[in-house]
Amino acid sequence: MSASSAPPSLDLTERLSRRARTMNASAIREILKITQQPDVISFAGGLPAPELFPLEEVRQASLAVLDRFGPAALQYSTTEGHLPLREWIAAQAGIPAANVQIVTGSQQGLDLLGKVLIDEGDVVLVEAPTYLGALQSFQPYLPRYEQLPTDEGGIDVDALEGVLQRSGAKLLYAVPNFQNPTGRTLSAERRRRLVELTAQYGVLLIEDDPYGQLRFTGMPAPSLYQLGLELHGDVNRNHVIYSSSFSKTLVPGLRDAWVQAAAPVIAKLIQAKQGADLHTPTFNQMIIAELVHDVLPRQIERVREAYGQRARLMLERIRADFPQGVEYTTPEGGMFLWLTVPDGLDTQALLPRAVERKVAYVPGSPFYALGGGENTMRLSYSNATPAQITQGIRALGDTLREALN
Amino acid sequence: MSASSAPPSLDLTERLSRRARTMNASAIREILKITQQPDVISFAGGLPAPELFPLEEVRQASLAVLDRFGPAALQYSTTEGHLPLREWIAAQAGIPAANVQIVTGSQQGLDLLGKVLIDEGDVVLVEAPTYLGALQSFQPYLPRYEQLPTDEGGIDVDALEGVLQRSGAKLLYAVPNFQNPTGRTLSAERRRRLVELTAQYGVLLIEDDPYGQLRFTGMPAPSLYQLGLELHGDVNRNHVIYSSSFSKTLVPGLRDAWVQAAAPVIAKLIQAKQGADLHTPTFNQMIIAELVHDVLPRQIERVREAYGQRARLMLERIRADFPQGVEYTTPEGGMFLWLTVPDGLDTQALLPRAVERKVAYVPGSPFYALGGGENTMRLSYSNATPAQITQGIRALGDTLREALN
Repeated sequence: MSASSAPPSLDLTERLSRRARTMNASAIREILKITQQPDVISFAGGLPAPELFPLEEVRQASLAVLDRFGPAALQYSTTEGHLPLREWIAAQAGIPAANVQIVTGSQQGLDLLGKVLIDEGDVVLVEAPTYLGALQSFQPYLPRYEQLPTDEGGIDVDALEGVLQRSGAKLLYAVPNFQNPTGRTLSAERRRRLVELTAQYGVLLIEDDPYGQLRFTGMPAPSLYQLGLELHGDVNRNHVIYSSSFSKTLVPGLRDAWVQAAAPVIAKLIQAKQGADLHTPTFNQMIIAELVHDVLPRQIERVREAYGQRARLMLERIRADFPQGVEYTTPEGGMFLWLTVPDGLDTQALLPRAVERKVAYVPGSPFYALGGGENTMRLSYSNATPAQITQGIRALGDTLREALN
Repeated sequence: MSASSAPPSLDLTERLSRRARTMNASAIREILKITQQPDVISFAGGLPAPELFPLEEVRQASLAVLDRFGPAALQYSTTEGHLPLREWIAAQAGIPAANVQIVTGSQQGLDLLGKVLIDEGDVVLVEAPTYLGALQSFQPYLPRYEQLPTDEGGIDVDALEGVLQRSGAKLLYAVPNFQNPTGRTLSAERRRRLVELTAQYGVLLIEDDPYGQLRFTGMPAPSLYQLGLELHGDVNRNHVIYSSSFSKTLVPGLRDAWVQAAAPVIAKLIQAKQGADLHTPTFNQMIIAELVHDVLPRQIERVREAYGQRARLMLERIRADFPQGVEYTTPEGGMFLWLTVPDGLDTQALLPRAVERKVAYVPGSPFYALGGGENTMRLSYSNATPAQITQGIRALGDTLREALN
């Protein structure tokens, strides 16, 4: 057999599935490549601050896990996840461990939820804008997206009922705390209405909450999941499905996250996860389980304080250095804020000019499931020093001022 | 809001996707639960021997990685995978690193391949019997399976052409080395014919090779992937997609595996993986990359020797203790052998009687995509001591003898 006896040419692209052809390289991923020049101050990524990682604690936990569990820390383990970790999570939420599924990053939770819930053509309601990664997770299951109107307080629940009436939606996906990308938080009042309306219209509600613990100002509101529990009075009838993660509070590189849901959903998540990766790495789950009791609470305090300082500085510099007509959100926690520049300015077109001035951001348009938001952008303050924030916001202000003139 | 203002009842099961309703709890998983009584000798699981794990080396590698990379070992990383690890894998195969995608266990590789290749109703050809986990990975994408006739030498390539002609298949999935569940290996001659025929009929060929390094007797045959490279003379036109893993050679609990494929397939795998789990855990990939140079070759020798001894002992005891009329495969490597008992005996029905005699196996039927094999079973020797093998095979022989009388 040799290259000379060449076989009939096989067009590999033509053999891809229909869903594969709808997938695109993440717009953000491509943008991040452009902005990764070493001297550019990047507010584009959504990275936690690595200097805050509990490196020494992870080292100690790794050793403790290998000492305590020996080879079992490196062996296959159950699809549901490491029981002590599931029990700890369940205790926080006041639910049985049977309703907790460990996943390999909350991205996997979203993928598995898409897999077990979304049929082709099902209507999925998302905020406008929404978390881009959720769109990527759901897209292979070929939903039809509808965008929910939002305002400064997140989802506009007065407009929601009309959408629920006419859309025949199966699923609503929301990030109620310090949303990615806007940094907005849904009020307690709106949360109640959102949970009641979705229950009334038989629409499953996915609450994605990676940032909820990172509140640096204001009062926490109850989770949608908790409100669902109260509404139904039964953990196994709750139509709210909760997703969270250790990526933003401890470290992201171990890929440990979880989903809380009613038994019928959990049963299918387990089966789907068996086919998807058998189980989340055993060693990693055991390391996280070592850290949740003492290290996690300290770490949450540390991250809150740091991100709060960075957010306040960024907002202060925005107020000082930006031209008039630029609107910004004021996050109460999390990693992001959101800018709306005057109509007519296109933040995607503007990015090369910002990069010339050595500052980068993510244009807002990719966060809209159905397009829009050309005059918006996301800034992340979580992984920037005070000097970078001061210098980067000044450069971005100059870029905007030049564009407006 | 309280339980008394109960919302309209929402039937969660009714909201599941069509594909979720086709998923079932793994038959094996349920069987393993039955057989996990402490005094039962289990040949049922497919677990590597934990006493052979390089525990101390993993400990040293964990410390080295945290020292060398610091917080970067715990940060988000690229979807493609840790470059030094991809480069090492690529060098082994003589291909560019761009054609290597790291995945979270080879189970994830199969899921992502199903996602980017299989449309509903596409015909997927599988061996009869085949790896049950592959069926679980592909099932959510709703293929139609066709079973390929096999014999002692694996896929019957003479019968294959007829199947290719009439089936309109898109994909063929095969485990050519020490197959799970049968332990059979495809000859070099059949491999050539399989690669040529699938190329000729435009059928993508997935080669799943988790056990290839664990040969304890006989001569290795070239991989289907290598034969595909020779046939096409171009890594980016190869219709063979290769999947392998560090789970059976190093440790499974870190969930590190990879896929080698042509650029059009890799490009879609990257996009699919972004939505599936963003990336495989950073720390774990770095640990594996520490181990591949010195520890992996030693470890492969160690595992080969141990599994070879266990396989030889199991075969010797089968010949000594089993009643006439029971056929068995003679694996040249890997972890499994396959029994065919006389027609009319149902190994699923027989299992409780074996468990009464304190021995367990997996009935063969679940490994058939379209049913069949009621008189077959899989035995794993990889995770059993000599005493367990001797005692367990005697008990299984007694069970079979009783059933045949």
